[in-house]
Amino acid sequence: MKFSPLVDELIKSLQCLPGVGPRSAQRMAFHLLERDRNGGGKLGDSVSRAMSEVGHCQQCRTFTEQELCQICSNPKRTESGQLCVVESPADLLAIESAGQYSGQYFVLMGHLSPLDGIGPDDIGLDRLETTLSEGEWREIILATNPTVEGEATAQYIADIAHDCDVKVTRIAHGVPVGGELEYVDGTTLALSFSGRTAV
Amino acid sequence: MKFSPLVDELIKSLQCLPGVGPRSAQRMAFHLLERDRNGGGKLGDSVSRAMSEVGHCQQCRTFTEQELCQICSNPKRTESGQLCVVESPADLLAIESAGQYSGQYFVLMGHLSPLDGIGPDDIGLDRLETTLSEGEWREIILATNPTVEGEATAQYIADIAHDCDVKVTRIAHGVPVGGELEYVDGTTLALSFSGRTAV
Repeated sequence: MKFSPLVDELIKSLQCLPGVGPRSAQRMAFHLLERDRNGGGKLGDSVSRAMSEVGHCQQCRTFTEQELCQICSNPKRTESGQLCVVESPADLLAIESAGQYSGQYFVLMGHLSPLDGIGPDDIGLDRLETTLSEGEWREIILATNPTVEGEATAQYIADIAHDCDVKVTRIAHGVPVGGELEYVDGTTLALSFSGRTAV
Repeated sequence: MKFSPLVDELIKSLQCLPGVGPRSAQRMAFHLLERDRNGGGKLGDSVSRAMSEVGHCQQCRTFTEQELCQICSNPKRTESGQLCVVESPADLLAIESAGQYSGQYFVLMGHLSPLDGIGPDDIGLDRLETTLSEGEWREIILATNPTVEGEATAQYIADIAHDCDVKVTRIAHGVPVGGELEYVDGTTLALSFSGRTAV
């Protein structure tokens, strides 16, 4: 037995969300139908609009429905001459929340992954190269993830930046604040020793 | 820092789904924008349509966009003269999946809960009374949840059915199949003893 066609379709389409299986989708559908028709209406509307209208910033490639995102269109951001390269808009948000950095960003929307057929052009490195050679940059900060692919991507971008005569830095890896040494893995501990600073 | 207005709105509206907080909503939004624009488009469309078109079956009160649901409009279902009363469409689906029952349903869409201001008319007991007094019913099966509210609701409906001279039964409570006696709670064990059947 199935539900009526429209309810069935709703349950199926909710399963396109990450981490949502048949049971959660059913629960979500009934929740919206029973208790939150208003919220559901807004949800349907904003999902539809976002899917059709949200594109990428012409400059940093993050998500925005305008031509330039809020950061790229902020003149104060260009003053520092710093460009931080991150893998995803979520990483950008995490760095913004930390409140330490006030330069511009470049969002790769992924990382180099030859096995999956993701090459330099797929993550916008051609555009990054143009940006680096045309602008006046004081520093490029590589904030890709500390994974194999992230490190390879960082190395690739560092080579591009060297060719353009721009200073390149990589964010520090080490023991996280509040972590206990006992539970930190060996690679991280080794990096925290090799990256030690004078006190 | 926030995202662009439309992405922000998408993340906020996803939080109306049960079990979805700010972080999961962000992850869902980025997943849809990055990897599944098609699925997102369909999701937006089906949520919007379901919210505006799905109503309740005129007869059994379950969700449907038609006047009568698939079960109520199936003439074979009326033959048995049985009516099963459940609290929610999800309960209906669970019973249908078990494949044991082939009669009609009445979906309360809730249970009696005077403290929350939910009285008999809010869960359609007025309509149930009309249904019981007008139809030819062989048996009413009470399949509300074995909770305090569910039991109270079952008792209330049993009284209505007695007034209408219809036979009333309650689904059996006891040790679930595959369960271990050691881990079954005392109330359930007591019920399984008081409800024991001859072998």
